[in-house]
Amino acid sequence: MSTPTSLPIRTVTDPDVKATYAVDQSVGATAPGDFEVVRARDLGDVVEVMRWAHETRTPVVPQGARSSLTGASVAIEGGVVLNTEGLDTLSTVDPLEGLAVLGPGVVTKTLKDAAAAEGLFYPPDPASAAFCTIGGNVATNAGGLCCVKYGVTADYVRALQLVLPGGEVVRTGHRTAKGVAGLDLTGLFVGSEGTLGVVTEVTTRLLPAPDPALTVLATFGSLEAASVAIVALRRERHRPSLVELLDRAAVAAVQALADYGFPLDCEAVLLVQSDRPDHTSEDVQRYAGLLTDAGAVDVAVADDPAEADLLLAGRRALSPALEAKGPRYLEDVCVPVGRLTELIRTGREIAARHDVEIVMAGHAGDGNLHPSIFFDPTDPPSRQRAHLAFSEMVTAALRMGGTITGEHGVGTLKAPWLAQELGERELERQRAVKALFDPRGILNPGRVYWS
Amino acid sequence: MSTPTSLPIRTVTDPDVKATYAVDQSVGATAPGDFEVVRARDLGDVVEVMRWAHETRTPVVPQGARSSLTGASVAIEGGVVLNTEGLDTLSTVDPLEGLAVLGPGVVTKTLKDAAAAEGLFYPPDPASAAFCTIGGNVATNAGGLCCVKYGVTADYVRALQLVLPGGEVVRTGHRTAKGVAGLDLTGLFVGSEGTLGVVTEVTTRLLPAPDPALTVLATFGSLEAASVAIVALRRERHRPSLVELLDRAAVAAVQALADYGFPLDCEAVLLVQSDRPDHTSEDVQRYAGLLTDAGAVDVAVADDPAEADLLLAGRRALSPALEAKGPRYLEDVCVPVGRLTELIRTGREIAARHDVEIVMAGHAGDGNLHPSIFFDPTDPPSRQRAHLAFSEMVTAALRMGGTITGEHGVGTLKAPWLAQELGERELERQRAVKALFDPRGILNPGRVYWS
Repeated sequence: MSTPTSLPIRTVTDPDVKATYAVDQSVGATAPGDFEVVRARDLGDVVEVMRWAHETRTPVVPQGARSSLTGASVAIEGGVVLNTEGLDTLSTVDPLEGLAVLGPGVVTKTLKDAAAAEGLFYPPDPASAAFCTIGGNVATNAGGLCCVKYGVTADYVRALQLVLPGGEVVRTGHRTAKGVAGLDLTGLFVGSEGTLGVVTEVTTRLLPAPDPALTVLATFGSLEAASVAIVALRRERHRPSLVELLDRAAVAAVQALADYGFPLDCEAVLLVQSDRPDHTSEDVQRYAGLLTDAGAVDVAVADDPAEADLLLAGRRALSPALEAKGPRYLEDVCVPVGRLTELIRTGREIAARHDVEIVMAGHAGDGNLHPSIFFDPTDPPSRQRAHLAFSEMVTAALRMGGTITGEHGVGTLKAPWLAQELGERELERQRAVKALFDPRGILNPGRVYWS
Repeated sequence: MSTPTSLPIRTVTDPDVKATYAVDQSVGATAPGDFEVVRARDLGDVVEVMRWAHETRTPVVPQGARSSLTGASVAIEGGVVLNTEGLDTLSTVDPLEGLAVLGPGVVTKTLKDAAAAEGLFYPPDPASAAFCTIGGNVATNAGGLCCVKYGVTADYVRALQLVLPGGEVVRTGHRTAKGVAGLDLTGLFVGSEGTLGVVTEVTTRLLPAPDPALTVLATFGSLEAASVAIVALRRERHRPSLVELLDRAAVAAVQALADYGFPLDCEAVLLVQSDRPDHTSEDVQRYAGLLTDAGAVDVAVADDPAEADLLLAGRRALSPALEAKGPRYLEDVCVPVGRLTELIRTGREIAARHDVEIVMAGHAGDGNLHPSIFFDPTDPPSRQRAHLAFSEMVTAALRMGGTITGEHGVGTLKAPWLAQELGERELERQRAVKALFDPRGILNPGRVYWS
């Protein structure tokens, strides 16, 4: 059989359209000179590309909504971008079995809304939920704002359909509530960042819907004081469904976009929610007391859902707000909650030492912070200093028993540190696992494990 | 380096003691003629055995409390039983991080009690919780009574330490609340039934403690009527924390042991619990109304925890009660909840056709049933008929979109059906994954995937 030299499927030809598929939202993402883009319309398209790419040893970059912050979905020189946004059928939302079946191109918010319409709840909630896709969420094991109570994407994926290099279609997992027949390959694929296979269908678990959340907003005289309050919240028997931290600059950036109701005159803000059915107001009142005792300067309870929604919209606006400020390295370290204060203090010390602006925010209740380290793109030394600060944050997190990435993934941005977290031997093992599924190394080559 | 011919570590020599380590609780488990038993006292012992066994290509059977129902921990001819009950240190219960760190030999109930003492909750709850070990729970991805609300062991394992064939000590997962650096090998090891490595330390996630559970007991004129009520319960927004089904014979067996408060004059009993904080009585009252509407003959609310505990103790006594009845094939199929009535009907039809006694019970709220198919050990044709009925139940469950094993594992008992569930090609892939960790095939050879 002769190897075809060109893709046996329609590719995107318009250069402007092609350019939009070349990059994701990671810092410094740039389009390569030579690449193709396939917008898959169905399973058959994915199979066709994966067969051809395997035969011709062509790199494939699986891609969803390009909201990756790590470079995992940037086009590769000489490769094919395989976009699965078109596989956007939400075929099943089943209240009896508590599950949904959908294509990888379904936007996260679409799934959340469809579940809600049936009195159900799909918890995973990346800040980008309004535009990111489930396929990308599975690829990165996305987390988000709900994780402090509800966990991450992996906790809600029951089964997958994937296409492997060579075009084999495989199914993992089960549709039943329990199932232990054979090895759990579903968990292996979730978070594999497009290095093992291309997701073409996802079966997710759904929970009964909680109540609309109510919110407490507390202000603090310092980030450290806020982080002490977080530790106090962790002792709460009725665990908050959201614990988000924003520093002064983060609040200023959000309020510069629109008035979301955040106070500007403080060093740190904590947003804390409860969505527990029936007892919601009681919970937020109790959280408010606890936050006051823990040293909050000002505590306000948003005890109607509309007010709470506005504050949450402000938190969701943080990413675009910070993007508007200028280019940045975006951190995603996660440490034990007990080390959070230390992480914050270290981050500020690093920023001061390298003379860079750092904005602190993130899912503090999980110990997962997203500090933004800004630089001036016209000033190369400023960029170098920012990267050095970024790098030192990663090392600091590892020293504290943390991880280089809580939820964004490794991609290209964090690949230099993976060996430091896992050890060389473990990295070798993971490469061997990859080689089992992708023996020719066509899927996202050079990313995550650098092979 | 020369290969040692005998185990470089103390083995059990007393034949009676040795015999107790030869078998688990699976039907027909028998000791082989020639095997050794090592009771590991620490990580070093496990490393030593795994190094030696790899060098000498000696089969190793990792073993905990021998409560396996599938034969996964039965000694192998010419092999070594590596028992890890001695690794029973519970070193950490950390309320701030919400985690525990413990050896595989810690009994499940010990972990649950230690968590409870700190106001925390380790949900996984196999019926054998009082004597099974965490190592075994991890090996089988154990479920149990809580799964309808809280999920299974995999949902609570954050990190593992394991020893691979050859003696390499590896760590998987993370201690932080989130972490996506590299592939999720933790999930791959959970449920791998001792075929990939030997667990030597487990880091589990803990939840805040729920309220003491309250219970509804409902009786029904038929199993089918009870299963219709289960479907109705699935629509409950405040999901029950337990939904257990027992048929007339199961109730009779339990009450024959002691008076646990179950009524004898009905065809089926449903036990339904709520452990939701503060609202418990309200929930069970509502479940009671719903069960009455769904056709229950009699509904009783055990609205004090002591009464509820007694009923639950009765449910936990079911396994010994049925064991006392005589030898049986114990099923573990799981189907979509919507197919439960059909599974029950099919099971009774199969039993009638093959003239065997079948007792129906199990975690019905998950679609996970444990029918017991009894036989007379002195009458080989009766055993053959029972095995045929068992086999037809498995096939029926697969036809209904179910799985051959919801929580007990594949072991040797279900190995003949694994290819039917996964497909030959997927089975080959799983064997390849095993070969990556255990290239000489020393771990539980011939089990699960027959290699």
